[in-house]
Amino acid sequence: MHTSIATVCLSGTLEQKLHAVAAAGFDGVELFENDLIASTLSIEAIRAMTEDLGLSIDLYQPLRDVEGVPEEKWSATLARASAKFRLAASLGAPTVLVCSSVRSDTVQDDAVIVRQLRALGDEANRAGVTIAYEALAWGRHVSTWDHAWRLVEAADHPAVGLCLDSFHILSLGSDPSAIAQIPGEKILFCQLADAPSMQLDVLSWSRHHRVFPGQGDFDLVPFMRALLATGYDGPLSIEVFNDVFRQIDPVANAIDARRSLLNLQNAVANAIELTGGEPPAGLTRVTHSRPAEDFSFVELAASPGQELPAVLISLGFRFRGRHRTKPLTLYTQGVIRLVLNEAAAQDLGSIVGIGFEVPSVDAASQRATDLLAMEVNRSTDAGEELLRVFRAPDGTEVSFAAECLTGDPGWVAEFVGGEPAARTAPLDGVHHLEQIDHVSLAQPWQHFDEAVLFYKSLLGLRPLSSTDVADAHGLIRSQVMQTGSGTVTVVMNVLPAAPANAKDIADQYADHIAFQTPDLRGLARALQSEGVPMLHIPANYYDDLEARFDITRAERLELQALNVLYDEDERGTFLQAYTIPVGKVFVELVQRDRYSGFGAANSSVRRAAQSMATQLGR
Amino acid sequence: MHTSIATVCLSGTLEQKLHAVAAAGFDGVELFENDLIASTLSIEAIRAMTEDLGLSIDLYQPLRDVEGVPEEKWSATLARASAKFRLAASLGAPTVLVCSSVRSDTVQDDAVIVRQLRALGDEANRAGVTIAYEALAWGRHVSTWDHAWRLVEAADHPAVGLCLDSFHILSLGSDPSAIAQIPGEKILFCQLADAPSMQLDVLSWSRHHRVFPGQGDFDLVPFMRALLATGYDGPLSIEVFNDVFRQIDPVANAIDARRSLLNLQNAVANAIELTGGEPPAGLTRVTHSRPAEDFSFVELAASPGQELPAVLISLGFRFRGRHRTKPLTLYTQGVIRLVLNEAAAQDLGSIVGIGFEVPSVDAASQRATDLLAMEVNRSTDAGEELLRVFRAPDGTEVSFAAECLTGDPGWVAEFVGGEPAARTAPLDGVHHLEQIDHVSLAQPWQHFDEAVLFYKSLLGLRPLSSTDVADAHGLIRSQVMQTGSGTVTVVMNVLPAAPANAKDIADQYADHIAFQTPDLRGLARALQSEGVPMLHIPANYYDDLEARFDITRAERLELQALNVLYDEDERGTFLQAYTIPVGKVFVELVQRDRYSGFGAANSSVRRAAQSMATQLGR
Repeated sequence: MHTSIATVCLSGTLEQKLHAVAAAGFDGVELFENDLIASTLSIEAIRAMTEDLGLSIDLYQPLRDVEGVPEEKWSATLARASAKFRLAASLGAPTVLVCSSVRSDTVQDDAVIVRQLRALGDEANRAGVTIAYEALAWGRHVSTWDHAWRLVEAADHPAVGLCLDSFHILSLGSDPSAIAQIPGEKILFCQLADAPSMQLDVLSWSRHHRVFPGQGDFDLVPFMRALLATGYDGPLSIEVFNDVFRQIDPVANAIDARRSLLNLQNAVANAIELTGGEPPAGLTRVTHSRPAEDFSFVELAASPGQELPAVLISLGFRFRGRHRTKPLTLYTQGVIRLVLNEAAAQDLGSIVGIGFEVPSVDAASQRATDLLAMEVNRSTDAGEELLRVFRAPDGTEVSFAAECLTGDPGWVAEFVGGEPAARTAPLDGVHHLEQIDHVSLAQPWQHFDEAVLFYKSLLGLRPLSSTDVADAHGLIRSQVMQTGSGTVTVVMNVLPAAPANAKDIADQYADHIAFQTPDLRGLARALQSEGVPMLHIPANYYDDLEARFDITRAERLELQALNVLYDEDERGTFLQAYTIPVGKVFVELVQRDRYSGFGAANSSVRRAAQSMATQLGR
Repeated sequence: MHTSIATVCLSGTLEQKLHAVAAAGFDGVELFENDLIASTLSIEAIRAMTEDLGLSIDLYQPLRDVEGVPEEKWSATLARASAKFRLAASLGAPTVLVCSSVRSDTVQDDAVIVRQLRALGDEANRAGVTIAYEALAWGRHVSTWDHAWRLVEAADHPAVGLCLDSFHILSLGSDPSAIAQIPGEKILFCQLADAPSMQLDVLSWSRHHRVFPGQGDFDLVPFMRALLATGYDGPLSIEVFNDVFRQIDPVANAIDARRSLLNLQNAVANAIELTGGEPPAGLTRVTHSRPAEDFSFVELAASPGQELPAVLISLGFRFRGRHRTKPLTLYTQGVIRLVLNEAAAQDLGSIVGIGFEVPSVDAASQRATDLLAMEVNRSTDAGEELLRVFRAPDGTEVSFAAECLTGDPGWVAEFVGGEPAARTAPLDGVHHLEQIDHVSLAQPWQHFDEAVLFYKSLLGLRPLSSTDVADAHGLIRSQVMQTGSGTVTVVMNVLPAAPANAKDIADQYADHIAFQTPDLRGLARALQSEGVPMLHIPANYYDDLEARFDITRAERLELQALNVLYDEDERGTFLQAYTIPVGKVFVELVQRDRYSGFGAANSSVRRAAQSMATQLGR
């Protein structure tokens, strides 16, 4: 379908916005009045620029407080509206958005509004444009889509139709299904936005917290299905007011917006097919690819002098060799593969890449390309396996790898000079890490929503619980993303927007890898006897633990001696231990017994202990 | 009265928090459980450290979900509570905070709660502590202070009393006056917090948006009066959960907190006196000082090579000379005095100091000192007037000057080698700036609340309207602060927390001075004929103006030709024009005709025009 985006979504001057919209591949824009007024470009220049960029101007918006107008203000209001209709016509915009009025003096009388909509329609008609009437969720008299529709239906004017905005409809909890009853030709425009669930007044929610479809908690699919059932084939346009999006690079942001629209269209088509329907031909599809099934490898920034290799060996990893041509080394334990990249030591955080096993590398890569992900070109020598690598919003390189049920993936053979893989777990049964429990990635606050959609749409990770962890330097939002099968979990830790002087503190130890072990106490005991430095957990924590949970003094003393943390939920128990930070990374060891969380209750203690370890020089 | 602060208000480790609390001059702390648990300090070490710092531990908090407990969980709950009571006793904390329960399985039966409070009281008594029961605004069964009080009254236990928290009471809109009926000895603790008005669920509001008293929209004085009427003389303790405060320097933050408590105590005493009462002797007073009456001078960073002097001369200012001993020059026009500081050119923003005329310099300075403002020591040579200078949270140097109804203040004579002052307005009647309309200061986002309280408590400026200005690089919160008489206005522009790569863009042109003129059109015409470069306002703005307001084509063309912006409110009209940015500062010229705003509707256009001017090399 014809895709569009409101200029108000993006940062920059109007020129910068238009270039970003075109670069992201949109078909058109909604031109926001303020962007026009503040621009030094003339109407003609704007029209010429959009044409050069291959963009249509699909909507001029908004015209406010032009219905329910008291009689004494009506002629001035109509004159103002007419001026805007002529302006829209000069821009080549076919439609002007009319919002339901919010002024306190709004005449709350449907008959008056219908009469005024007709008069506006006459003026619009004269200028050669149409008006799309939209119910703002906080409109004074008209706040629901069905009220707006009744008025448009009553106005019965060829130049007067409806604008439907998913935010205004879904934020009120309105059922969108009856939209399907509207004649499609009376819907002149569709604006799309999502939002996180909040108990905030709807105006503030709308003005500051909208996000792109798929990034929030609204279910836009039923709304879209009802819309398409009317036969609507006009623009699908993103209109998001978001404090963060207003600040960030407009090109990356426009690409994120268009990804959301591609993903939504595809989800809608899938939903229609699933119920035996035939999706409209206009819906853009993206290549089907099943969710990631496992981690193939994790790549860490590590220079040769660092202690990370020693820690890995202590944990039971084997050194499998150096890459034949690249500054990489490989350490493995069973199916866990860690690549240390000596060239990446300066990157933010310490996890620079994640390889995901997917059912089809080709399908996953094509889907990533369809969804506008940026592919990373890696030089590959003859005989080397070509990995398809895409850059995530936080800079992490995401690779797709084929499933590997037995043995090693082909690329492992490119690492030479190390030990062979152990076929089974170590004989002592202790150094036994079974699999990666989760990978935890620091996310700059300005890319969080983009990252959620990226991992969701490309890899099938779904946002689960989100918790705020209180750190000595601020709150860290910790968002768990997991595949439906639960085999792949990525935790995104959103760092606070630190004051300039505290930036380096907040960034510390944001990335980590957690490994599952069947016997954490045994492993911790072995590591202790080998002198592997584990993170020291203060005694006060164990005093509290003993008061909080039904554990014996002996159990408490054992956990304390081993620096193992404990948590439980309604289903089971959880043990955690940490290596001291090595460079900017640390390793977590966990033992799960039906417990489904990630030890969020212990995160503050862990962060404080890490700060302390750093202050003490470890 | 005994002042205290909860450790949860501040950033840092427990040691850092305790040192900050002591440095700010508090008498004690509320120890937040998580701070204890995460600390490597033993109970004994914490107790010793607080004693060394001269701090008492006034409260251990919180104990959650220990009332309304289902029978089968009660013995474990009581055991947990007992452990915490013994812990509090070891810390030397006389009281443990018990919050009303929030669990979904809370037994919603007052009789059960009374029985459990009594049992808790027995255990507390055994440990030698008391419990202070507090109604959380989102408590499952108990959410109001009067419900909590009925339960405490019914429990009738010597170790069971009440904790009153201004946030939980005022956030629900509860009337605090009946608190006065509670026997003072049954109130064991008082927590104080303010908050901005928000339509947000009360839990999120409380956890993220509390501010120190005087920084928000709550009126804490009636609450305090009711509390004091009971005879309560226990701790007044600040308990604020704030995402920003958690990130910033704990010492500055603790000082801000104590300033809020000093200011509140003084306001309460004043309110009691105003109604003929006798304030309790324990209330700390601060020196009385009436609000600022006018600007005495504004000091700008400016090196000699910059164009600012030329622009000032064009605007009708006279060069009055160089300072005898310091790298300062002075420009005046009537009562407007601008000091250019050549040594301060590198500072953030361009306004480095503001001199305020106050009725008594001694009283204002003493009040500033009483309110913990940091005095700036300036070297003063013999014969020079000593200014009392204090540093505002954003770094601006705030000076106090005596009222100067006729002629020049004494310090003007320290500037030599320039022209004498004009006794009257220029003869042509055009170059006539009458007074400073307002001074606009950029505020780093992390110091905004602190700055509001600083200007409010030291200078009597009150927060008026706050608007969000959409800039090409983000939203700018613009907060007007004004004295009751309206003669002194400072606008604080809170810059967005910019991504690292956009910092310099967001900081541009944040500071400015606006001057009032009786004839802006005439002045603009004169400036145009002299070739003074004014900020170019795009034609699109005037097209819109013509559609929005009842102005003629001729009026529009004149405004456009002069680059004058227009606004009106229900009372009158407003004209604005801007010089192009000079260094990091710009000058605004305004003409008011009963209009009370600051042209916020034009701010986006102005910001865009400034960006454009910069891109074009002016």
